[in-house]
Amino acid sequence: MSLLVVGSIALDTVHTPYGKVQDMLGGSAIHFSFAASLFYPVRLVGVVGRDFPYTFKEMICKKNIDTKGLQEVEGETFRWNGKYKGRMNEAETICVNLNVFANFKADIPEDFKDSEYVFLANCGPSIQLSVLKKIRRPRFVLADTMNLWIKETRTELLRLLKEVDGLVLNDGEAYLLTQESNIITAGKCIQKLGPKFVIIKKGEHGSILFGHENIYLLPAYPTREVKDPTGAGDSFAGGLMGYIASAKEINHNNLKTALIYGTITASYNIEDFGVNSINRTTMEDIKVRFKEFEEMIRL
Amino acid sequence: MSLLVVGSIALDTVHTPYGKVQDMLGGSAIHFSFAASLFYPVRLVGVVGRDFPYTFKEMICKKNIDTKGLQEVEGETFRWNGKYKGRMNEAETICVNLNVFANFKADIPEDFKDSEYVFLANCGPSIQLSVLKKIRRPRFVLADTMNLWIKETRTELLRLLKEVDGLVLNDGEAYLLTQESNIITAGKCIQKLGPKFVIIKKGEHGSILFGHENIYLLPAYPTREVKDPTGAGDSFAGGLMGYIASAKEINHNNLKTALIYGTITASYNIEDFGVNSINRTTMEDIKVRFKEFEEMIRL
Repeated sequence: MSLLVVGSIALDTVHTPYGKVQDMLGGSAIHFSFAASLFYPVRLVGVVGRDFPYTFKEMICKKNIDTKGLQEVEGETFRWNGKYKGRMNEAETICVNLNVFANFKADIPEDFKDSEYVFLANCGPSIQLSVLKKIRRPRFVLADTMNLWIKETRTELLRLLKEVDGLVLNDGEAYLLTQESNIITAGKCIQKLGPKFVIIKKGEHGSILFGHENIYLLPAYPTREVKDPTGAGDSFAGGLMGYIASAKEINHNNLKTALIYGTITASYNIEDFGVNSINRTTMEDIKVRFKEFEEMIRL
Repeated sequence: MSLLVVGSIALDTVHTPYGKVQDMLGGSAIHFSFAASLFYPVRLVGVVGRDFPYTFKEMICKKNIDTKGLQEVEGETFRWNGKYKGRMNEAETICVNLNVFANFKADIPEDFKDSEYVFLANCGPSIQLSVLKKIRRPRFVLADTMNLWIKETRTELLRLLKEVDGLVLNDGEAYLLTQESNIITAGKCIQKLGPKFVIIKKGEHGSILFGHENIYLLPAYPTREVKDPTGAGDSFAGGLMGYIASAKEINHNNLKTALIYGTITASYNIEDFGVNSINRTTMEDIKVRFKEFEEMIRL
């Protein structure tokens, strides 16, 4: 088994009521990898510029992450600058500099082309499709997307949806994609566009898994102190795919458990800035919180 | 065992994307009674004016509801006129005429003073307190409240909280009452004000039960078509208290089950205007949906 992620690597500047941190390690592929590698070795594909700090490379290398697909090219690393206010449900983007990510080609190392579990992190759907073409026989492909692609590259996105097993997106994106206003109708509508599995994230309100015939409703873990929600969705996907890769079988029950692991990894992610919290989290921590959470949701 | 509710009886005019209905049977005590009476006989205390339609009296009498406490006085019945737009998460009040409800004294019939289970529906806290004084030895008292009382009659509300076993309120009200912005912190903070049990409702996002030492997180039943959310909270409380009264024992497990029954009765309530849907719902329907819902939330 093998788990591949293709997505952004960024230097994030984030401002929340808890403070401001500049140029910290971030990006969808990073948040995913740090979470997923708790469960299973991760193959990372992404691009950084010459300015990417050596200490961040070291941080990544210390994890169970294969960096063969981490390209360093001329130019500056992708930068995102965002601010969260009040209850921190949504980020206000102050500034985005795609830099080297603008020409990201997602070259997949030869060794990675046999990957069985693939997470196509938030990225233009044409890049996501081009990655898929290079993977020989993936067993389970999960894609993420966002408002920008739903609005600007709808045709390519609809093409992508025919090729993936699962789509993970938030409620607002699901409404935008389907033009529905009921979450159940929206989820079922997305399934008709291709993905057998749809996971709709509702932030602090939990998530919904739409499977073959069943729906699974899961609350979020009730975090007491959210310091920085950046990367919550990617660490959710990381815990989910990491568990799925380790479980070896894809069925509704395993996906339900995976949803819980996703919820738990995301809950650690948001407790500190960037990857600070998930970086010091162990599988032991995950298991303790899993048990605690189970008690809160079990009838 | 005996279950008492004291609250408003209204003629509601409601406008939703599904249409407009004028002067239909409504009010907190009505929505509560119709839901709770599916589980257990209800003692209703409320006031109406001379204009209260005979057909509505008939509708109430056909239920398992004791109307000895239903006073009819000179004047007009309480009227509420509201509108829901878009995803219908919040009502916009167009107009309120308290009418006879303005002088509501909540006279409790002698026969009702031995009530063991009491729901103090949304009402000024001084009236809620005066009701409590008249009940001899209640076993379990649950109160509801709203922004108006939290802002305008805080002192009385805080006095009430010391006298009740449970408080049910929505998330916005919990934040307003506690000045907290985290739902878990808010719930625990309310427990410190008096109630052993706190139930925070999050509408379509479910509810949270704060018990002695445990928290229970419950998603909402995923209704496909919400026609009129009016009374959702009261029918939720109705299913909850109705089940509790029928279960005869108050413990964390029974309260968890009660939360699910509340969720299910509320899900029926919102499927049609006013009490139309809950009026035709049977205990058989409730049980079918309970099972279906259990499948959606069970790990």
